[in-house]
Amino acid sequence: MPENAIAQVAIKKVNTGNITDKEDVLAVEEPLEIRLNYGPANNRIQKSISVTMRTPGNDTELAIGFLYTEGILKNYAQVKGAFTIPDNIVQVVLKEDIPLDLSKLERNFYTTSSCGVCGKSSIDAVKTTCDIVPLSDTLRFDAGLIYKLPDILRQHQQVFDSTGGLHASALFDTKGNLMLTREDVGRHNALDKLIGVALERNMLPLDNYLLLLSGRASFELVQKAAMAGIKIVAAVGAPSSLAVSTAKEFGISLIGFLRDQRFNIYTGAERIGF
Amino acid sequence: MPENAIAQVAIKKVNTGNITDKEDVLAVEEPLEIRLNYGPANNRIQKSISVTMRTPGNDTELAIGFLYTEGILKNYAQVKGAFTIPDNIVQVVLKEDIPLDLSKLERNFYTTSSCGVCGKSSIDAVKTTCDIVPLSDTLRFDAGLIYKLPDILRQHQQVFDSTGGLHASALFDTKGNLMLTREDVGRHNALDKLIGVALERNMLPLDNYLLLLSGRASFELVQKAAMAGIKIVAAVGAPSSLAVSTAKEFGISLIGFLRDQRFNIYTGAERIGF
Repeated sequence: MPENAIAQVAIKKVNTGNITDKEDVLAVEEPLEIRLNYGPANNRIQKSISVTMRTPGNDTELAIGFLYTEGILKNYAQVKGAFTIPDNIVQVVLKEDIPLDLSKLERNFYTTSSCGVCGKSSIDAVKTTCDIVPLSDTLRFDAGLIYKLPDILRQHQQVFDSTGGLHASALFDTKGNLMLTREDVGRHNALDKLIGVALERNMLPLDNYLLLLSGRASFELVQKAAMAGIKIVAAVGAPSSLAVSTAKEFGISLIGFLRDQRFNIYTGAERIGF
Repeated sequence: MPENAIAQVAIKKVNTGNITDKEDVLAVEEPLEIRLNYGPANNRIQKSISVTMRTPGNDTELAIGFLYTEGILKNYAQVKGAFTIPDNIVQVVLKEDIPLDLSKLERNFYTTSSCGVCGKSSIDAVKTTCDIVPLSDTLRFDAGLIYKLPDILRQHQQVFDSTGGLHASALFDTKGNLMLTREDVGRHNALDKLIGVALERNMLPLDNYLLLLSGRASFELVQKAAMAGIKIVAAVGAPSSLAVSTAKEFGISLIGFLRDQRFNIYTGAERIGF
């Protein structure tokens, strides 16, 4: 994480009636505007796509991942470049020959309003974008390995340890190697950053990895995982009902409450080895 | 919470290598569309304002609270009625003589896109809507009382206990009485529900209460608290940097990491009594 991901503040620490002045570190939360530049060479269009509250750092990855998981970008080859502009703006420039489905853009404006996504239209968007792979793949993760993953993540999650205020998304291979991790005050941003950098590195589809989430598993996170081809999602916290039904629909193995040598399997138990 | 706030599913429970079939309960997550019906009698307009992923229950309160904290509604007297429509729609009908600032509506569309809000424009929105009250009020909460609030909330948070998947917002008076509480998979929804019902009950401004948040304190939650006139916000989890600066700007006392007889005071320590 970059230096500007945390901020130092003076606080008063209260402990069973004792009050002391201390310095504390916080996770930084700032708005990021994502602008898209697209169209033919003689008629380029610039459009503000989204403003999201995020923790500074990996901003171009966040923009790329967001555009991909929203179904606007089809692949990284469509991108000419992504640039940060002061203050808190990322401009993503598409190549000249890229057809852009503006109705999808409109729909995404709509469906992502108010921290939300409309389950039905978003599930439809995932359906039209993802190939639904049946559960016949050979990917397997050993239960004994899965227990250990939160500790491995925690060792790498330095900002989280200092602020207690960040969500993390992490990608593990079947041997338990931590391949990638990204952090943010918004869990959807942490996952968009992770998928954005994976896209830049030509790693998609991520169908040989396990996605570990430091918090709860919502519909939105499972939807983004599906867009990136992820087949196993494990959350330290609880899943929601729609997270479970979406995972089932897209053949994703969903694990929840992964802590203290325990976890629950909600869907796709076939991929967990004992 | 209503019955449809939780869903029962069959899971596989894994505990140190043992795997057993169990029934588990999940927090339900479903989209809710908020529609606004407004305009003069001879030219009523119906507009879809937002789709948010929420836990069913208190849907009209959620819609009312959302419209109020976004600055669209000025008070509850502007509302003719709020109705639930199958499936997952709330229609809020305004009285005929209500002027509606559509540019604000547009701005809110924009600023709430992608789970985010633009810090700057939203802070401006709060500024134009709220009277900024200096820290000269006489509201005081005793530290010894504040320690106890999370336990009191937990005793009332029955759905959270069963699913582990819900956020709660709760309002306490200076004697530690739990006045109101609302739960949701989305913490912004839990707070909108709480503010919505408070608005319906003519309790605003909520400047004699403490707002307890079961999770982290983001900018968005502090902004909503400011809109409702709340002067003390205490979170069980960490605050973000922008939550702290927003609290400072609006004269809100902000407490974080409230657990195990401890807490941190980030702003407005004057209101905490020892």
